[in-house]
Amino acid sequence: MEAKFQALWRSLATIGRDDRSGGYLRYTYSAADLACREWFVEEALDRDLEVEVDPNGNLWAWWGDPQGGNAVITGSHLDSVPHGGAYDGPLGVVAALLAIDELQARHEAPANAIGVVVFAEEEGSRFGVPCLGSRLLTGAMDPARTLALRDRDGIGVFDAMSGAGIDPAGMGHDPARLGRIGAFVELHVEQGRALADLHAPVGVATAIWPHARYRFDFTGQANHAGTTRMADRHDPMLTYAYTVLAANKEARLAGAHATMGRVQVHPNATNAIPALVQAWLDARAAEESTLESVAAAVRKRAEERAARDGTGVTMVTESATAAVEFPLAAELATMLGAPLLPTGAGHDAGVLAAHVPTAMLFVRNPTGISHAPEEHASDADCAAGVGALTTVLETLAWR
Amino acid sequence: MEAKFQALWRSLATIGRDDRSGGYLRYTYSAADLACREWFVEEALDRDLEVEVDPNGNLWAWWGDPQGGNAVITGSHLDSVPHGGAYDGPLGVVAALLAIDELQARHEAPANAIGVVVFAEEEGSRFGVPCLGSRLLTGAMDPARTLALRDRDGIGVFDAMSGAGIDPAGMGHDPARLGRIGAFVELHVEQGRALADLHAPVGVATAIWPHARYRFDFTGQANHAGTTRMADRHDPMLTYAYTVLAANKEARLAGAHATMGRVQVHPNATNAIPALVQAWLDARAAEESTLESVAAAVRKRAEERAARDGTGVTMVTESATAAVEFPLAAELATMLGAPLLPTGAGHDAGVLAAHVPTAMLFVRNPTGISHAPEEHASDADCAAGVGALTTVLETLAWR
Repeated sequence: MEAKFQALWRSLATIGRDDRSGGYLRYTYSAADLACREWFVEEALDRDLEVEVDPNGNLWAWWGDPQGGNAVITGSHLDSVPHGGAYDGPLGVVAALLAIDELQARHEAPANAIGVVVFAEEEGSRFGVPCLGSRLLTGAMDPARTLALRDRDGIGVFDAMSGAGIDPAGMGHDPARLGRIGAFVELHVEQGRALADLHAPVGVATAIWPHARYRFDFTGQANHAGTTRMADRHDPMLTYAYTVLAANKEARLAGAHATMGRVQVHPNATNAIPALVQAWLDARAAEESTLESVAAAVRKRAEERAARDGTGVTMVTESATAAVEFPLAAELATMLGAPLLPTGAGHDAGVLAAHVPTAMLFVRNPTGISHAPEEHASDADCAAGVGALTTVLETLAWR
Repeated sequence: MEAKFQALWRSLATIGRDDRSGGYLRYTYSAADLACREWFVEEALDRDLEVEVDPNGNLWAWWGDPQGGNAVITGSHLDSVPHGGAYDGPLGVVAALLAIDELQARHEAPANAIGVVVFAEEEGSRFGVPCLGSRLLTGAMDPARTLALRDRDGIGVFDAMSGAGIDPAGMGHDPARLGRIGAFVELHVEQGRALADLHAPVGVATAIWPHARYRFDFTGQANHAGTTRMADRHDPMLTYAYTVLAANKEARLAGAHATMGRVQVHPNATNAIPALVQAWLDARAAEESTLESVAAAVRKRAEERAARDGTGVTMVTESATAAVEFPLAAELATMLGAPLLPTGAGHDAGVLAAHVPTAMLFVRNPTGISHAPEEHASDADCAAGVGALTTVLETLAWR
């Protein structure tokens, strides 16, 4: 299985890779993403799967007729964060195709249809809303709000989809397609070091932490850096800097995760005090109440500092995702003899969990690094992941 | 004079203005900058001035033959900081043309030639080195180093100049052209509130504070914002944020100016701990020793914090400009009955001061705001500035 994994993995590995960083730039509906999607369609057709694209941009490949309504779905996504790693998303798609190979070698046809899905815009790196494809499918995201989203170049979802040859007519909640699904199992590279510490190649997710994203607008008075007396300044960069440190401190105190990894400054010139600093806070915690209290504490400290700096600050919730429990977790852990672990990362499986029995398998990541070029899993562990996924799909699709 | 000022001012005011911010985007050799330069050439030709462009990109317009070697030069620049104000630069060029009008009405020809200069890349907003045109002219900047500079899109100075129809052959130190200059007087909008506090429309600069720019590279480990334990992080945004606050504090303690108004984050994604935060420190002080001690203190605090954050930090001096005294200041202040004041802002006059007798006139700025769309001077004060400049040029060119 390791050799089979290596061959299929290699056929995808060069698409959208930035030679300088070694990371991937596979923004949804970009040329690189479309090349990944084409790769998927060809691999699916090679396996005699029936391919369709839904009006939310998600790709489906079917073994057997899904109209029966008890289909077993696996898959993940192919888009990346900016300069992201190779495994986050693609590993789940490659593992799904290899599991199909294995099952097709063992069986004429599945008792219940098996589907491989590639969800659109899981990372939210282009349009800002993570899990956009699965949120639209399940009705968690409104088509009108979606069509108002713009990427950094001002291009909207409608134009991006049309440009990719995908018809957005009928975008939104799709109970018919959702009704076909009997279970969803997503395999994913682990984005932490829990399995490495446990010396286990594969694990089963129990839950996803609640997660929220906030946008801060720190406003001040643009002015000349050389001539404006320190006492006369209204410098929003100071308020931003204080908020970065406050968010880190509040998260540590609460046992939560808080990150401010994205910032945009206007005018962003060396010799100008900024007029505006926009920054995003990513916050996650095991409990929703913890998440809320961390966010409230950061907001309070930002506002206090803004009063001292003579600046303004507003904080807007851009997305908020409740905690997700995976109902199939205990059964799968027993089936595979694999450890259970929670995660702080959101996934399409987290979105689907509210609607269908859902589970996630994690493959060991020796360093825990993810969303970066160093993200890695060994070929042996990936092959073990394919084996585990095959077992799960066989159990679910033939019972 | 107010009506004449208004008419000429208005003819330049729409070029390169961003409708949303109300500020100007006149990057050197951009379409907007080239339109400004064309405007200048036409205005100069309307006044029967002889126009030339030098291999450093500076524009010169001559009334009388400058070969005599005792020419009196005035002028400023037409490029802007990102979303900068209308007055910084253009006011000195418009005032120069209007002073020529006034002097041409009074005299057949000047005793010594009078020149109006438009220096290239004064703000350093495109290629990062302020006063690039005057530094090249005086030999303070090396042509080879200049040709290695790149703008944010990777375009070099050679291609930018060639694209603008300017031949860079012979770029660099130009003692012949410099030798023509008997005196240089630059009129500029004040970038502080000293004249407003003194209730004076026009002032004379005594000196420019020493000034340095440093680039910080804060390096860390890119990772997933949701899954990476706080204790496992190497987040360079924390080191950056601490350094912003430290620079502000050190400058306040020393009576200096320090600003971190420009930052670039990689990958700059909401759900990723950054790998790299690049940021620029602009520092100025009345004494060079103060500037050096502030910079050293900021570096020390950044390095200490980096050790705590498990990140790396390097600090590189991108430019350093010594203090400048204007030798003509006292004479002009007496001539005009105008107050004397120092400034924290660099100017081409500061670069020329090491080579020729130089002076600066400031026009009152009611709010002191500069490098921002709100930058302003009243038409009456601008007209008073033209009057003062006319007096100075007449005294210098006919003696």
